[in-house]
Amino acid sequence: VKGIDIHTHVVPSAFPPSVRPGVPGWPSMEPVDACRANIVIDGKVYRTLTHPCWTTSRRLEDMDRMEIELQAISPMPELFSYWMESAPANDLIRFVNDTIAAFVADSKGRMLGFGVLPLQDMDLALAELDRLKQLGFAGVEIGSNVNGEPLGSPAFTPFFQAVEALGLAVFVHAVRPTGMDRAVASLICANILEQFPKLRIAFSHGGGTFASLLPRFAEGYRVFPAVREMLSSPPVEQARRFFYDTLVFDPRSLAHLAALFGDGQLLVGTDYPFGFQQREPVSRILETFADPQVRNRLIHENAGRFLNLGTVSR
Amino acid sequence: VKGIDIHTHVVPSAFPPSVRPGVPGWPSMEPVDACRANIVIDGKVYRTLTHPCWTTSRRLEDMDRMEIELQAISPMPELFSYWMESAPANDLIRFVNDTIAAFVADSKGRMLGFGVLPLQDMDLALAELDRLKQLGFAGVEIGSNVNGEPLGSPAFTPFFQAVEALGLAVFVHAVRPTGMDRAVASLICANILEQFPKLRIAFSHGGGTFASLLPRFAEGYRVFPAVREMLSSPPVEQARRFFYDTLVFDPRSLAHLAALFGDGQLLVGTDYPFGFQQREPVSRILETFADPQVRNRLIHENAGRFLNLGTVSR
Repeated sequence: VKGIDIHTHVVPSAFPPSVRPGVPGWPSMEPVDACRANIVIDGKVYRTLTHPCWTTSRRLEDMDRMEIELQAISPMPELFSYWMESAPANDLIRFVNDTIAAFVADSKGRMLGFGVLPLQDMDLALAELDRLKQLGFAGVEIGSNVNGEPLGSPAFTPFFQAVEALGLAVFVHAVRPTGMDRAVASLICANILEQFPKLRIAFSHGGGTFASLLPRFAEGYRVFPAVREMLSSPPVEQARRFFYDTLVFDPRSLAHLAALFGDGQLLVGTDYPFGFQQREPVSRILETFADPQVRNRLIHENAGRFLNLGTVSR
Repeated sequence: VKGIDIHTHVVPSAFPPSVRPGVPGWPSMEPVDACRANIVIDGKVYRTLTHPCWTTSRRLEDMDRMEIELQAISPMPELFSYWMESAPANDLIRFVNDTIAAFVADSKGRMLGFGVLPLQDMDLALAELDRLKQLGFAGVEIGSNVNGEPLGSPAFTPFFQAVEALGLAVFVHAVRPTGMDRAVASLICANILEQFPKLRIAFSHGGGTFASLLPRFAEGYRVFPAVREMLSSPPVEQARRFFYDTLVFDPRSLAHLAALFGDGQLLVGTDYPFGFQQREPVSRILETFADPQVRNRLIHENAGRFLNLGTVSR
């Protein structure tokens, strides 16, 4: 059985210049050699990238080697552009999303797109979300916060409402300044899955440190009436309705996540093709779990539910 | 077998006024009723406290009920006073430490003291550390950071050097602005146990979210040469030489900590007598672990090593 990897990144091989003069944060790409390029932001090399970031044929070879049938591809988080003025951010994000759509079209049905949105401007974000749906994207990638604003803030309610209505998946990726544990806790405090029960939300990196935080959160719910009043259902119950990827680099930690969140909520995620990736995701699952049904759930079935593959065309 | 609880807090029943006029942050206590008092800081009620915070006889009764033979008692973290000017902070801290010494003297040998230090001023801190040793304290309680400065900063090297020389234990408690995961990671990055191999350091709340962070840290060590160069020994190896309390409110998470850090490194910690405490710490260990040797380690043997009970007079 081949797997579905919901956490992989892409970067365009080049960026157009901005039509607006002197936009801080606008990226450019400088080739290093045939296989590598530097992404340069505000005159500094942000990161050296390798050609699997933008070369679909090479990705397909790697997917075969990694026993991955299908990749959801999402932009490198630095491209969220939340910290850029919203008009140029929207220009950049449209280009990035169009590039993703091109990669998907070139993938022989083996890639699905997660687009990004200029969430610092809700009107622009909702317009781009509609465009993603028309382009056939499977979902959106959002940051663990938007310029420090927690995801559970009422400011983002229109986004979650629209995503639910469009039937797209939400992939939450850590981004500065605040981490994933707060992202999950914030969405639980906002009762987001009580408000929008059809939402499908996955957190990268196994939910970050949220697994360590959840039991304390649950005890707080038990002890403090104010916490109980805030939440429509208990933290553990809400936590077990989110999805989490398997990118935790340790079999014991992976088994712990399955116990805590449920083996129906874990998805293969690798961070391919970055240096800090999980190179043998399927083997790691086989090593950690003996039950064939659990293995199948983690390798592809849960991802099928998260991506709603029954209705998304491949 | 009765347990040793290394994570309990005390608060003086009253505070003297400051000899210096108008010190921001200096606390006072206002009785609410026979059993409760408000601690007031800068004109605001910081917290309502109950009399076990300052009543040794009541603590001893609760310890019997909780199957705890020995408590290490440390101040409520708000009393760290790192954010106060150092001269009045030192006044307050001396008073708090003297109060702890009095509680210990009144405890029929069933309490050990963890004092606090004005770590915003290293000269004052080292002088008070000497005084703690003379007063027979078993250790010191320090924050997870000092006004945002990470514990691994070279600024704190003289403190760790002196603590090791005096043979006192170090109990690290979370305090604003940054959490426990960064505290542990910072001390590993500083190779603190390589520099001072006789140090005995315990982290509260099971190390906070550090358990979720460690496998990623270990993978970073494997992948990035710069991380390998920084560390004298691998992160997991260093992590397994620290102690962590059992205050995680979940048997699966407790078992996970034992697997990750080693069952020789976990200590009973309850947060007694605060509202958010672990009320049946020994039962939780018996529930989680079947092996009698492992149970004994967690209930009292590891704490005996951490507190160096072979040499500290009880």
